[in-house]
Amino acid sequence: MAQKPSIPKGTRDFNPEQVAKRNYIFNTIRGAFETFGFQPIETPSFENSETLMGKYGDEGDRLIFKILNSGDYLAKANEQAYAEKDALKLTSSISEKALRYDLTVPFARYVVQHQNDIEFPFKRYQIQPVWRADRPQKGRFREFFQCDADVAGSKSLWQEVEFIQLYDTVFSALKLEGVTIKINNRKILSGIAEVIGASDKLIDFTVALDKLDKIGEEKVKEEMRAKGISDEGISKLQPLFTLSGSFETQMESLKGILNTSEEGKKGIEELAFINTAITELGLTTAVLQLDVTLARGLNYYTGAIFEVSAPAQVKMGSIGGGGRYDDLTGIFGMKDVSGVGISFGLDRIYLVLEELKLFPETVNKNVDVLFINFGDKEALFSLKAIKQLRSQGINAELYPDAAKMKKQMNHANKRAIPFVVLVGDQEIESNTYTLKNMVSGEQDKVSLETLIVQTKK
Amino acid sequence: MAQKPSIPKGTRDFNPEQVAKRNYIFNTIRGAFETFGFQPIETPSFENSETLMGKYGDEGDRLIFKILNSGDYLAKANEQAYAEKDALKLTSSISEKALRYDLTVPFARYVVQHQNDIEFPFKRYQIQPVWRADRPQKGRFREFFQCDADVAGSKSLWQEVEFIQLYDTVFSALKLEGVTIKINNRKILSGIAEVIGASDKLIDFTVALDKLDKIGEEKVKEEMRAKGISDEGISKLQPLFTLSGSFETQMESLKGILNTSEEGKKGIEELAFINTAITELGLTTAVLQLDVTLARGLNYYTGAIFEVSAPAQVKMGSIGGGGRYDDLTGIFGMKDVSGVGISFGLDRIYLVLEELKLFPETVNKNVDVLFINFGDKEALFSLKAIKQLRSQGINAELYPDAAKMKKQMNHANKRAIPFVVLVGDQEIESNTYTLKNMVSGEQDKVSLETLIVQTKK
Repeated sequence: MAQKPSIPKGTRDFNPEQVAKRNYIFNTIRGAFETFGFQPIETPSFENSETLMGKYGDEGDRLIFKILNSGDYLAKANEQAYAEKDALKLTSSISEKALRYDLTVPFARYVVQHQNDIEFPFKRYQIQPVWRADRPQKGRFREFFQCDADVAGSKSLWQEVEFIQLYDTVFSALKLEGVTIKINNRKILSGIAEVIGASDKLIDFTVALDKLDKIGEEKVKEEMRAKGISDEGISKLQPLFTLSGSFETQMESLKGILNTSEEGKKGIEELAFINTAITELGLTTAVLQLDVTLARGLNYYTGAIFEVSAPAQVKMGSIGGGGRYDDLTGIFGMKDVSGVGISFGLDRIYLVLEELKLFPETVNKNVDVLFINFGDKEALFSLKAIKQLRSQGINAELYPDAAKMKKQMNHANKRAIPFVVLVGDQEIESNTYTLKNMVSGEQDKVSLETLIVQTKK
Repeated sequence: MAQKPSIPKGTRDFNPEQVAKRNYIFNTIRGAFETFGFQPIETPSFENSETLMGKYGDEGDRLIFKILNSGDYLAKANEQAYAEKDALKLTSSISEKALRYDLTVPFARYVVQHQNDIEFPFKRYQIQPVWRADRPQKGRFREFFQCDADVAGSKSLWQEVEFIQLYDTVFSALKLEGVTIKINNRKILSGIAEVIGASDKLIDFTVALDKLDKIGEEKVKEEMRAKGISDEGISKLQPLFTLSGSFETQMESLKGILNTSEEGKKGIEELAFINTAITELGLTTAVLQLDVTLARGLNYYTGAIFEVSAPAQVKMGSIGGGGRYDDLTGIFGMKDVSGVGISFGLDRIYLVLEELKLFPETVNKNVDVLFINFGDKEALFSLKAIKQLRSQGINAELYPDAAKMKKQMNHANKRAIPFVVLVGDQEIESNTYTLKNMVSGEQDKVSLETLIVQTKK
């Protein structure tokens, strides 16, 4: 019976302090989502397999956690696959459900399924865990939360403007200054591919360009050549590699490069609209930056592409991202619903706040007062006061056993409880409470009213 | 591609109103948990199968959702089971993880795994979903939330007292008056079994007794006879079937029945302690009631047993339950850790509040103000005001497109948005806002300051 318990790799237990810190981030994001007019939905942890499979590419399919059918799941097993011991082929006959892989596909499914009850444009947010059978590594887990806000059913560029404001609002509220919101547009990338004669190699081209930060100019060019992009085309890209300066300066260079591409010019127009509006409206602490190498899930995005970087002093990948996808619900047969949305990377934001010591000191909602237990009579007297304290929102508790005083005081110390109350015969007789401040060591006999005032933060 | 999307049976989508109502209940429970000194933990959605399997009986094992191993899961399949197509035997070789079935076993696992970091007694709460492959039916789902508070490492009866207060606090805060907190004690049931000479048939005896409410006295007796309990024993039970009156009156009758059983007398002593304390402390809206037929998961509980009934005017099963289990962590090899805890049944509480119309009108955090979009210039002017409103905590949004006025007003109506703001040339010139109250129909030209005051609830 004496097994040593553990949890599956890539999963985590969260202790009270961690839960409190995570909730601080969740609540900040949720608060901003709501002032921006987003409303919450929740979807089931598992979906029918056909809802998820095929939506994230082959690699995604492999990383989706499948749930074994209940009961005699072999009764309906695909006979040929079973005979051939072909796991890949067998799966769909013994597993009909799978754990959610992200929040976007379930959202698209939700929109289609409930389209008659939804008033469009539909601004929804969703904060729920997702699961991926990825190889666990530092900062990458098999169970993690996503915090998404999306709008379905509006092509207006004001949405993009508002999402930039939303990022700024959340990170400012978290006191995380120095965040960079990078923006690009799929149409810019298509335009460039067109200009260099590589429209048919858009994905290869952007995948290579996306690596500029990591592997440098020469390697990017090498990769492009390997994918069959001509030297002539690559030479036309040269200005891209050296793009710098303000948003406006970069836009001027881009205009030069893209002056023969209708799509490219449309992309520039969209970016200019967004940048002008943001300049007019102002950001509190974040900076908006054009990044022509930004591609992210390009297969997916059709317009704006966002990515958020933590302040430069922290080594950390992106802490958020998103973009516009013109055909959100097409995978479920509902046409012409444009989607645009952003996501916050909870785990990385947590690490950044931790590293920069930005969690408020009061984040951990600890117990405010512990009443020492000297016996049943004293405990009952104490519980009457505790009842009053709790009704005032004070977190109060009675040490459950009449253990040795020293043990009880140690308990208060180890849990960093700021106040301890001692109630003995004297206190009961005089209807008072001995209140000890565990930080200063000061001790006072006080009335119930004073006790409430002193322990209420 | 045109699949009609749906979700697995027994699961649910929650729309914004439902999420808001569920959060209202969660937040009320969470707030009470914290004032009572409980601290939150969270555990992974899936555990290693060996952590869960065998902890809930054969039926439980069957109802646990198993997750298929990733990759070529057949490579390690049990060959004999595979050859015999024995699903039951095959499972453990192709599935190593399983979805959480309740929050108590993961809590026990957590306590054992982190015992060196925990300061006992450990008061934890946990609000997370659990999954069961039960047959779905009205009010029974395959994915549902549990809200548990437990204390590990204290045998003090003050915990039982506090849990009764906690139930009372939560249901009073939810304005759900007329709740009955039923209490029993495993020692009472053991004592009765002893007295009627059926100690070896304790489970059969209590399972039958537990049905008294549903099937009546005669059928209960019949079942006991069928299980081999003697007529003489059953006749000694007679007073049980007619127990009535106050807590104290019933206790007197019980004392008579149990005067030859040491264990029974211990049970009476414990109940008396709890009842006296609760009488002294007083409950706000709930009533504490002795119910000798209450058994619940008897295999499990060793002391107090709790169950909460909704007000009599609502037809609903129990909306909460719990009890004392002296060997919480023994299943994971850690001895002598007593546990006691209670659980709130979120889904049923939701149905009760809905039926009695007890959700506050303001529960649905809707958008407070919609700004009508007359074009880009007006939109930009509006967004500047919206930014101010949001910073004041007002949920405000801009209609994203410069659609026809009527369409935009309809949108506000359908979403029951209470205020609409109209901004045209005149307003921009005079730096004012036309504020329309969508309920009264009144319309006023106001300054930004007034706009904030009027729309802030």
